[in-house]
Amino acid sequence: MTNLYDRHSALLARAAEALRTRVFWTPFPEVPSGKIYGESAMADGTAAFEALVGNAFDIPGHPETRRVGRENAPWGKSLSISYPSADPATLIAASIKAADRWASADPETRSGILLEALTRLNAMSFLIGHATMHATGQAFPMAFQAGGPHAQDRGLEAVAAAFAEMTRSAAAATWEKPQGKREPITLEKRWRIVPRGISLMIGCQTFPNWNGYPGLFASLATGNTLIVKPHPGAILPLALTVKVLREVLAEEGFSPDVVLLAADEPGAEITKTLVEAGVFSIIDYTGSSVFAAWLRQNAGSALVFTEESGVNSITITGTDDFAGMCDNIAFSLSLYSGQMCTSPQNLYLPQGGIETNEGHKSFDDVVGGIVAAVDRLLEDGTQASSICGAIASPATFERIEKARHAGRVVRESRETGLGASATPLLVVSGEHEDGPWNHECFGPVSFFIACADAHAAIARAAAIAREKGAITAALYATDGALIDEAATAFARAGVNLSVNLTGNIYVNQSAAFSDYHVTGANPSGNASLTDTAFVAPRFRRVMIRWPKAA
Amino acid sequence: MTNLYDRHSALLARAAEALRTRVFWTPFPEVPSGKIYGESAMADGTAAFEALVGNAFDIPGHPETRRVGRENAPWGKSLSISYPSADPATLIAASIKAADRWASADPETRSGILLEALTRLNAMSFLIGHATMHATGQAFPMAFQAGGPHAQDRGLEAVAAAFAEMTRSAAAATWEKPQGKREPITLEKRWRIVPRGISLMIGCQTFPNWNGYPGLFASLATGNTLIVKPHPGAILPLALTVKVLREVLAEEGFSPDVVLLAADEPGAEITKTLVEAGVFSIIDYTGSSVFAAWLRQNAGSALVFTEESGVNSITITGTDDFAGMCDNIAFSLSLYSGQMCTSPQNLYLPQGGIETNEGHKSFDDVVGGIVAAVDRLLEDGTQASSICGAIASPATFERIEKARHAGRVVRESRETGLGASATPLLVVSGEHEDGPWNHECFGPVSFFIACADAHAAIARAAAIAREKGAITAALYATDGALIDEAATAFARAGVNLSVNLTGNIYVNQSAAFSDYHVTGANPSGNASLTDTAFVAPRFRRVMIRWPKAA
Repeated sequence: MTNLYDRHSALLARAAEALRTRVFWTPFPEVPSGKIYGESAMADGTAAFEALVGNAFDIPGHPETRRVGRENAPWGKSLSISYPSADPATLIAASIKAADRWASADPETRSGILLEALTRLNAMSFLIGHATMHATGQAFPMAFQAGGPHAQDRGLEAVAAAFAEMTRSAAAATWEKPQGKREPITLEKRWRIVPRGISLMIGCQTFPNWNGYPGLFASLATGNTLIVKPHPGAILPLALTVKVLREVLAEEGFSPDVVLLAADEPGAEITKTLVEAGVFSIIDYTGSSVFAAWLRQNAGSALVFTEESGVNSITITGTDDFAGMCDNIAFSLSLYSGQMCTSPQNLYLPQGGIETNEGHKSFDDVVGGIVAAVDRLLEDGTQASSICGAIASPATFERIEKARHAGRVVRESRETGLGASATPLLVVSGEHEDGPWNHECFGPVSFFIACADAHAAIARAAAIAREKGAITAALYATDGALIDEAATAFARAGVNLSVNLTGNIYVNQSAAFSDYHVTGANPSGNASLTDTAFVAPRFRRVMIRWPKAA
Repeated sequence: MTNLYDRHSALLARAAEALRTRVFWTPFPEVPSGKIYGESAMADGTAAFEALVGNAFDIPGHPETRRVGRENAPWGKSLSISYPSADPATLIAASIKAADRWASADPETRSGILLEALTRLNAMSFLIGHATMHATGQAFPMAFQAGGPHAQDRGLEAVAAAFAEMTRSAAAATWEKPQGKREPITLEKRWRIVPRGISLMIGCQTFPNWNGYPGLFASLATGNTLIVKPHPGAILPLALTVKVLREVLAEEGFSPDVVLLAADEPGAEITKTLVEAGVFSIIDYTGSSVFAAWLRQNAGSALVFTEESGVNSITITGTDDFAGMCDNIAFSLSLYSGQMCTSPQNLYLPQGGIETNEGHKSFDDVVGGIVAAVDRLLEDGTQASSICGAIASPATFERIEKARHAGRVVRESRETGLGASATPLLVVSGEHEDGPWNHECFGPVSFFIACADAHAAIARAAAIAREKGAITAALYATDGALIDEAATAFARAGVNLSVNLTGNIYVNQSAAFSDYHVTGANPSGNASLTDTAFVAPRFRRVMIRWPKAA
């Protein structure tokens, strides 16, 4: 057995340091380059992916009573992969059986194993990129990053935060209480880290790894066993993850069943059956607020960590770089066709227009500027495809169709020419304050909403965040007082605010080790990646104390 | 305005250090001595207490539409104090009104105010001791400690843990992402601490301050406003606390309504009305599992931190100090007549008896030894009263009466001669495995339970902890392997274990800064005092980021 903790302890310490300072850092390069990952990495990854397509996915030793697999094919390429599957009771029994030894391992041992798995996953990022691309509809560069290094960053964050918390206070102490002139009372004390129990991670369709790794690695690091329930449309990225974790676990002498895959198929999902078994102590979930509410009602005493629906916004009150603003917004609206939890949906503008470096711009001028920027950005089909990717779920096309009737369409959604695609539909909302823009409309749909003035625009964007949830908010403003006003309003609404973004940085982007993803302070989710509240309740401390021998 | 943070920052740093090392430390002396608290402290405290009795308790500026107050009088001395009272809607409105400014204060400012309040409360410990004694039935020395310095320790713990967590990661960062040969992308980032909202602390009858301070100080430190709902039988200790906090808040320019008192009367409790208003983000509760379950069902999205019912145990498998063991157990059973959440209830013994330094002792020998030790300890009425105190709730007498029929009574419960008192009732359980000993029987009732052997005794004590909850477990054993077996069994049951206690240290005792009180890992409560999980979710972080000017 290798000492994996020793191998990776410098990485762990560096990650903990980054979590404190919040400056830029990552050990997992985001550029899909042969210079970084090895000259043959791209070809090897492609070959490894193609070898999986159409075949039975092997997870040695995994409980299996049948095979399942009917994943989405947003790019038109059917994966046709079958995964080992077993009924919930079998999976739960296997998880329970593996629990004691994993719980007894010390934080160093567990962290070492998880960091080794992350390192191996990193080396597989091209394979994971292809898997993520074809399961989610992301274009390859995004799929590489979001399924690979960026997800690995978030996993490392969780391990580092959990390790810091588990080792934050002494594991042993000699407690000596003075008794005046008499001998002091002296107790020896030892604390064990005790996991909460069995955990369940329920994956999502669009970012299976990125959204899955935090809960997955946090639960494992703190000694819980884990059942991974991927979205039936996007299994492969998490199946690869489970497989690697099981390999390292087995090599280190643990039961690989510490991590299990609960694959299922659309229309025959086993999530509710799993939850209703009532055995889970922790559930991590990314998806709709409707299902999150069901979970909270039915999860018993389990901790439920969620990322849910929301209405992200851009508030435009002025800019000294009108062209840069329009280009930046155009990219944010187009990226992965609005299928990011961070994609902006509503654009709030003063009805009287705004002042810019190009002079006054009316409401329609601003709308026109953004529409033109989107058109320009997506003019070329290949580029459009590489930015918009493909649509993960057919329901998204239905939402686009519905949104078309919600107001004045100023830009039609179009196909890119590759896969099941749809570029942004841009709609100027109707006169009424209420409308479909006051709900999450997941996908490439955005609404321009005219407000009385800049203050009203900020107030409405903040109000919808507070009421319906929001993970991101953007603001364009030149007036310092207005920025302060917005900073307070969005802070109270519990939403992270990006101000005056132009150039190559977008409101959609959330960087591990620096940006806490989701604040937990509005209905868009209660889990903040990765703060202490996300890791600390996943384990408990139990003491034994005895009088010190004289 | 004083800089209270500067005044108390060394204290805060020392407390944080103690939380890390878990060695003995306290800034608040537990001995009710004039040499420590000032020669006139005792007389002043008594006079201040007597001045309150029978009068209207004044809380300047507190919302008030009527007066309430019908506290218990376990020592026979009726407090007859009336407190300002207002309906829940008025209290909630006042709390909301005070929220914004308190939320905007920085962690240093809030901590400074809370530490100043704790320091002033410490100086009032004799008054608080009398208040606690007459509200709870504790004898004065315990009331002084539990209502005064020990509660203040737990409050300081909460402030220190919250402050450490709020300042754990940077409040500002310059994030510079390399872009190969191009200019890096540089963002300025700032994070605000945002409280969760309005919090509610629901106090208990027996340890209003000790159990109340952790949630109270944790919620305030993290920027939440707070409504304190004392048990209607024990208002004064928390009313004094609220008054002091409001004084410091007002002096420092904050609305005193950051902390409000929601006093009520037996039979007309307003707790449910408060909770059902649906405005609380955090609820701290100490009391029955039945009401805790109601809270979880009705608290909406509020975080609910609890300390609940449980069945604490002593497992006796052997000892090399039979007399010392019996004396130690006798004291633990007698202290405050078993009305501590840490009091042992069930004693598990091998039916064949145990080996000791005095040779083999049969089951009946051990029972007899403990009965004799209790009798000896409580022989003198004055001493009995000073150990047992008085009974806080009439329901306890009903439980004693019922328990009398649960098996063979080996020691009758008696009066001490002072107040509404009852010394321990000791019962040998019946043959059946099930019986009243498998439920919490709060008060001076303990059951001796015969088990097949030492292993069975450990297994049964651990099982009841896992199933019904337990805050403490004690073990007497001379065999190292048996101690290891118990350590693992009780760790899995999530209960802190004390081994071979003799002399002046008791299983009932939980020391701030060293002992985490309640593990959160069994049904006796989900809040561990004071771990990070207790403070971290009480606030959130919200970011603003913008491109750094070139």
